[in-house]
Amino acid sequence: MASKALAIIAGVGPGTGASIARKFAKSYSIAVLGRNPDNYNPVVQEINSSGGQAIGISADVSDSKSINAAFDKIQAQYSSSKLAAAVFNPGGGFVVKPFLELTEEDYSTALKSQAQGAFNFAQRSIPLLLQARGSSEYPPTLIFTGATASLKGSAKFAAFASSKFALRALAQSLAREFGPQGVHVSHTIIDGVIDIPRTKAWVFEHEDAKLSPDAIADSYWYLHTQPRTTFSFELDLRPYIEKW
Amino acid sequence: MASKALAIIAGVGPGTGASIARKFAKSYSIAVLGRNPDNYNPVVQEINSSGGQAIGISADVSDSKSINAAFDKIQAQYSSSKLAAAVFNPGGGFVVKPFLELTEEDYSTALKSQAQGAFNFAQRSIPLLLQARGSSEYPPTLIFTGATASLKGSAKFAAFASSKFALRALAQSLAREFGPQGVHVSHTIIDGVIDIPRTKAWVFEHEDAKLSPDAIADSYWYLHTQPRTTFSFELDLRPYIEKW
Amino acid sequence: MASKALAIIAGVGPGTGASIARKFAKSYSIAVLGRNPDNYNPVVQEINSSGGQAIGISADVSDSKSINAAFDKIQAQYSSSKLAAAVFNPGGGFVVKPFLELTEEDYSTALKSQAQGAFNFAQRSIPLLLQARGSSEYPPTLIFTGATASLKGSAKFAAFASSKFALRALAQSLAREFGPQGVHVSHTIIDGVIDIPRTKAWVFEHEDAKLSPDAIADSYWYLHTQPRTTFSFELDLRPYIEKW
Amino acid sequence: MASKALAIIAGVGPGTGASIARKFAKSYSIAVLGRNPDNYNPVVQEINSSGGQAIGISADVSDSKSINAAFDKIQAQYSSSKLAAAVFNPGGGFVVKPFLELTEEDYSTALKSQAQGAFNFAQRSIPLLLQARGSSEYPPTLIFTGATASLKGSAKFAAFASSKFALRALAQSLAREFGPQGVHVSHTIIDGVIDIPRTKAWVFEHEDAKLSPDAIADSYWYLHTQPRTTFSFELDLRPYIEKW
Repeated sequence: MASKALAIIAGVGPGTGASIARKFAKSYSIAVLGRNPDNYNPVVQEINSSGGQAIGISADVSDSKSINAAFDKIQAQYSSSKLAAAVFNPGGGFVVKPFLELTEEDYSTALKSQAQGAFNFAQRSIPLLLQARGSSEYPPTLIFTGATASLKGSAKFAAFASSKFALRALAQSLAREFGPQGVHVSHTIIDGVIDIPRTKAWVFEHEDAKLSPDAIADSYWYLHTQPRTTFSFELDLRPYIEKW
Repeated sequence: MASKALAIIAGVGPGTGASIARKFAKSYSIAVLGRNPDNYNPVVQEINSSGGQAIGISADVSDSKSINAAFDKIQAQYSSSKLAAAVFNPGGGFVVKPFLELTEEDYSTALKSQAQGAFNFAQRSIPLLLQARGSSEYPPTLIFTGATASLKGSAKFAAFASSKFALRALAQSLAREFGPQGVHVSHTIIDGVIDIPRTKAWVFEHEDAKLSPDAIADSYWYLHTQPRTTFSFELDLRPYIEKW
Repeated sequence: MASKALAIIAGVGPGTGASIARKFAKSYSIAVLGRNPDNYNPVVQEINSSGGQAIGISADVSDSKSINAAFDKIQAQYSSSKLAAAVFNPGGGFVVKPFLELTEEDYSTALKSQAQGAFNFAQRSIPLLLQARGSSEYPPTLIFTGATASLKGSAKFAAFASSKFALRALAQSLAREFGPQGVHVSHTIIDGVIDIPRTKAWVFEHEDAKLSPDAIADSYWYLHTQPRTTFSFELDLRPYIEKW
Repeated sequence: MASKALAIIAGVGPGTGASIARKFAKSYSIAVLGRNPDNYNPVVQEINSSGGQAIGISADVSDSKSINAAFDKIQAQYSSSKLAAAVFNPGGGFVVKPFLELTEEDYSTALKSQAQGAFNFAQRSIPLLLQARGSSEYPPTLIFTGATASLKGSAKFAAFASSKFALRALAQSLAREFGPQGVHVSHTIIDGVIDIPRTKAWVFEHEDAKLSPDAIADSYWYLHTQPRTTFSFELDLRPYIEKW
């Protein structure tokens, strides 16, 4: 199976990242990155035990040395695989505080986790995606996960919104630079609460009020399968009852 | 087959509308609306001769009487079918002229074709989509086709941009009103030249420089299949080499 | 005084339009257009009795014949005046209703009042503004009044949002066509309740919670005075306590 | 003069910053911050020699220690002055390179100069602006300077666009948090080439093709003088011939 194409997903815990890994594992070998192996080990094992192929690597996207070491490991492990898709999905940097209570570190951590982390991830992914052109069924794809705060700054969200706006700017810049070269760069707007273990206890008035991680994963797969005649850059995703 | 669910597509010529009709005909009975039967007859025949079910009705969306008559015919023909999806895709109102050369009629025709036409279409579709909730595999869906000019007014595009901005406002308003009621309302941004008979002679420097109507249709089908936990409102679609 | 430059303001009642007329009357002869003379007569008299020069003309912007007759009268009255500024500020077309209760006429009236009305007004204003280049202290200016609904479609606002989106598209298109020719085209986003006779009874928790019509007028004047090196297209205006 | 109100301007060289300082010096005591005294000394001397009051402080906004020391000095120097206005206008972090040639430091420097720098500046300014409420003629004001890249990511602009998007998110978040508390937070979009010493040699086909720094300063002053009934958040500024 070493020659199966590869998908790399950064930011894999028990929620969206795991669903994306599962979805892409139906077609590709998988490498998942996360800070805490406890978060990604279950999905790695699940994929491997159900006929797929996955590895997990502990890495901090905001640290370029850590990201570089992770990509080196991935390339050693999957030396003959082309990179079909790379997904940047880390949750770091989320902080909700009145502005005058934010610390300098709160703010810089948000920028590092989302913007600098995405920069580090893209610097290593894009050369591999460029190499993969022509060899894969679908155009090589790079997807970034955005949020409501990617489009709107709000009271108490100064740090998170700054980091998510920056991430969106990066994604747009990459789409405009590498789209014409045949790499599909997309950005999603996840606008609502995702139905993951951490939010299980949150009860809403209406049924189906939380985003399904599997449906998010389906949308990422859909974006990946678009032909280069018909690329989407941005896709918003929200529960039907969400105010927006 | 009378009880198969129904899809109605307004604005069917030999391009995007026909591809959408073909795609949705794999799952649904189809009714297509167009001003000129010569434009929609080929796809209607093609669907019927390949095991699907389709009817074509000559109608002018900008004329509420014409739209009402068309919907009455559709409901008579498919009396036991629920409306699974409605797509508003007419091309009318496109005009490119310096502002001072635009006539009052150029401007009002654009508004009538796109905005008033979409209003007429939505007034008849939405009650049927509301009725269909619960009976269909996917949430009942209403999709409007937008363009580059939906987001940006440009020199010489005053009429077309006004009409496409208005259409987008309508789509957003409907999404915010009927989304929470379980009807999925979406709007697409078609940003580029579509590869249809009328544009066959337009040659670009790069391969694959035109939008594929079949890929557009796939994206409409993807939007239709999203569960209500995870609705998209807006999807941009463009060829990889398009400047944006 | 016949040779003083001229400002034309469409949509003058006792609120914003009157404040704009008063402000511009300090420098220019004024022509105000409104459907009902009772609405604009007080400000016309006030300007004339305090040393300014103003005329009021009853006109319906959505009717090109009415607009053309009004401009003919203005040109007859102020035959030697250059047009320094034109402001489109009518309030027509505002309707708030659930979509399925909107009538076809509600929707078409909104489009006619805002979009077609602005088209009619611009068709007559722009040739005069082009003629005024070089003769006036400030670049000839055309300002359109927008609203919250110019940027966002909402439940129950389908008609009004469609018309205000269309107006914004027109303004953008004109700015991109005539800006490089030296005519300054701007669009404002009035985001909140204006403090006018009609809203006097609306009480808010906070002081100063309504937009001041005089401050809006100051902002229009500021836009008008911008040199062509440094034009603004869009200006949002809202009370400090407004949610946005 | 110690009790005259104060304006602090960060990012003062021979261009926009100097014009803003000159404009605000007509009403306020001034403190300008810049990395290089050679850049701000001329305007400081000019203000002092023409009857105004100004000090210059060498500071690096991206370094919180440096910013804190600068604010401490300002408060010592102008101990009895209220802060009427603070302007964040540094030019750091501008870099134009293909993405794969950007270094990690290019990217982090951009984020630090614009986003983290603005954070540092706002953390010290906002408490002073809150204290100034009620004592000043105009609402205390905090203005951030944005750019074309604040709204659009482009090929080769990944670093600069990320930093300017982040700055805009910060500005929006602060406007939504502190606007209702009476502090006016604004963000400008400077869209074009500014007419400063560094761009003197750039010749354009048309006259007046560069933004006037004095006209930019006038617009900042206009924003500052808006009453709290009628605040603007965002103002775009561009030469009449600019494509946008």
